[in-house]
Amino acid sequence: MRQKELTDLFKSVRERRPLVHHITNYVTVNDCANITICAGGAPVMADAPEEVAEMTSFAGALVLNIGTLNAAQVESMILAGGMANDRKIPVILDPVGAGATRFRTATVQRLMDELKISVLKGNAGEIGVLAGAGGKVRGVDSHGLAGDVAAIAKDFAKSARLIVSVSGETDIVTDGKRTLLVTNGHPLMGSISGTGCMAASVTGVFCAVSDDLLNASAAALAAFGIAGERAAGEAKGPFTFKTALFDELAGLTPAMLARGAKIKKA
Amino acid sequence: MRQKELTDLFKSVRERRPLVHHITNYVTVNDCANITICAGGAPVMADAPEEVAEMTSFAGALVLNIGTLNAAQVESMILAGGMANDRKIPVILDPVGAGATRFRTATVQRLMDELKISVLKGNAGEIGVLAGAGGKVRGVDSHGLAGDVAAIAKDFAKSARLIVSVSGETDIVTDGKRTLLVTNGHPLMGSISGTGCMAASVTGVFCAVSDDLLNASAAALAAFGIAGERAAGEAKGPFTFKTALFDELAGLTPAMLARGAKIKKA
Amino acid sequence: MRQKELTDLFKSVRERRPLVHHITNYVTVNDCANITICAGGAPVMADAPEEVAEMTSFAGALVLNIGTLNAAQVESMILAGGMANDRKIPVILDPVGAGATRFRTATVQRLMDELKISVLKGNAGEIGVLAGAGGKVRGVDSHGLAGDVAAIAKDFAKSARLIVSVSGETDIVTDGKRTLLVTNGHPLMGSISGTGCMAASVTGVFCAVSDDLLNASAAALAAFGIAGERAAGEAKGPFTFKTALFDELAGLTPAMLARGAKIKKA
Repeated sequence: MRQKELTDLFKSVRERRPLVHHITNYVTVNDCANITICAGGAPVMADAPEEVAEMTSFAGALVLNIGTLNAAQVESMILAGGMANDRKIPVILDPVGAGATRFRTATVQRLMDELKISVLKGNAGEIGVLAGAGGKVRGVDSHGLAGDVAAIAKDFAKSARLIVSVSGETDIVTDGKRTLLVTNGHPLMGSISGTGCMAASVTGVFCAVSDDLLNASAAALAAFGIAGERAAGEAKGPFTFKTALFDELAGLTPAMLARGAKIKKA
Repeated sequence: MRQKELTDLFKSVRERRPLVHHITNYVTVNDCANITICAGGAPVMADAPEEVAEMTSFAGALVLNIGTLNAAQVESMILAGGMANDRKIPVILDPVGAGATRFRTATVQRLMDELKISVLKGNAGEIGVLAGAGGKVRGVDSHGLAGDVAAIAKDFAKSARLIVSVSGETDIVTDGKRTLLVTNGHPLMGSISGTGCMAASVTGVFCAVSDDLLNASAAALAAFGIAGERAAGEAKGPFTFKTALFDELAGLTPAMLARGAKIKKA
Repeated sequence: MRQKELTDLFKSVRERRPLVHHITNYVTVNDCANITICAGGAPVMADAPEEVAEMTSFAGALVLNIGTLNAAQVESMILAGGMANDRKIPVILDPVGAGATRFRTATVQRLMDELKISVLKGNAGEIGVLAGAGGKVRGVDSHGLAGDVAAIAKDFAKSARLIVSVSGETDIVTDGKRTLLVTNGHPLMGSISGTGCMAASVTGVFCAVSDDLLNASAAALAAFGIAGERAAGEAKGPFTFKTALFDELAGLTPAMLARGAKIKKA
């Protein structure tokens, strides 16, 4: 992405302050709400079937996260996702722990069958399982993946007709044709709970204001990664890092994003 | 309020350490628990119908917050609220996102119909919707309100026979006869998730030890606002601000509250 | 415990990074996840009946916490606990607020009847109620306990055939034969929500890698307590303390644990 595009995109985020509706887990939900604000969006979290469609109807993006999945929540995801699809707003799905249990894997497959997902954002293990390429998921962590992650993600994006966003030391964002690699970030991001979930929220914020969801997804990961790089310099440990991560994303300007983003074509 | 009243009230909070029972949302629940402790209270959060009435029976105040509303939770709110009414302990209702969905608006109306609410604490948009005076609520944010907020709040307090507490740059606390304006606070309080919910918890703590709920509600917002003012001086961004907000409220003394409170009659 | 044992145990935690499955409350769940990581484990939180047994099947320990109990969650606890018992992995039960309501007391008794609990970790009030020795529980706090806590805990451990771990100024860990006293910790640990829950998570992490659950439970409380002692030196208030608590536990080395642990036989 050119610097001008990044600058304009992030300016647009900050000016429009898009509402991002979440149906998400209760472990990292507060982190997701706050990172959404820090990125420049306005978070809403609601999951009652009585209101999720209505709440989604005025949102700019919908983030679905299965971190603490339950059956009732899946129905609400279907309702909210249906409204998002009708309104043509982007749906970001974070398949937390897919592959760890049959319930998670089956739920992700159901959500992908019944909804048009715009961006599937997972780690290598989760994406590997969903792509049928293996990948060992232990709990909600992932461990390795046979084969070339980028190639697997690309093929999967093409066949599933969505954007696959794989977080890792190098993030991979692909729509099956174009593939972008994002090398921003810091190892300390793996030392706290919730950075994966937060990355999905930031992706929602950026996708809410753009028609180019591939670029928006990559820009979101770059912005979040730059915040992580800057936060690492202030950290004495994982929690001072976490505090600084929010502060740095909130303080990130479009110019800083454009300068610091490490996004290249694969 | 006179300085002596404020000092005595806050001393009473710190000496009695009132138990404040919450039925609240899962986004900011941890913030509510910790701010309750920092204010001088003891938090309990429970929402199972099997135990909410019993848990409420030995509380000093009940805080109801519909931030992540669901049908089962409403039944528990009715049970807990009934016990609170029987025991004549104050019930604080935070109508998060009322007006955003029909489910939220109808639920608040049901709670107001079936329970005696002591303090309705919302933002201008939520209060405007509930008062039938308009107000546009987008998600859980509010945007403007036609007319004079103080006048609307006052009329609504009178007709609904409760205290209306409207948070904003100037907080408005009114029982329909007397109206207090609180001008403590800092814009950074709007940069994090949960300050509205936390203000309701602090209101619960103060109301638990007082018979004058109008003064107690205003004093609570002043205390929370002063903590925000002090925290702002230490903040590098929203999350260092949040950390300092808790520390400052915990460190606030009755004398500091009495000196720093900006409460005046409308 | 000898220093060598402590060093080896904590080295084992850090090398094996055990998965600790939690079925826990939504107030402190994020704290539990992060403290698990800081201690050296990998947290999973899931509570749907469709997946809890499967998720538990590859965990190293199971932590059950009834802080925001509901009926559906109890069924999931039974399912997960059954799998943990089958797989012979330790089950840590934190009976938050037992004694405060009949529902909580009865649920703990049911869990103890239907599952083999390895470690029951509560405060003096909760343990007193469960042991039938009195103890007044107000909300989720405890207030005093008639009689000698250590003696009550020891008798209860013997009759219930489990390890009783009582947190307090002096922690008491007993299997009914051997009793260990842990005097690490700092009063600021009582100034934030969730330290009790976090102690249970750290206990799960240590128990997951040891066959000697008495020593592992005491070592866990010592490690957590040392982190609290170190954090207190950096704190300006409860929340800077909390931030430092996570950082200090993450930075604690086996050598520091061995040097700083204050564990002695009763």
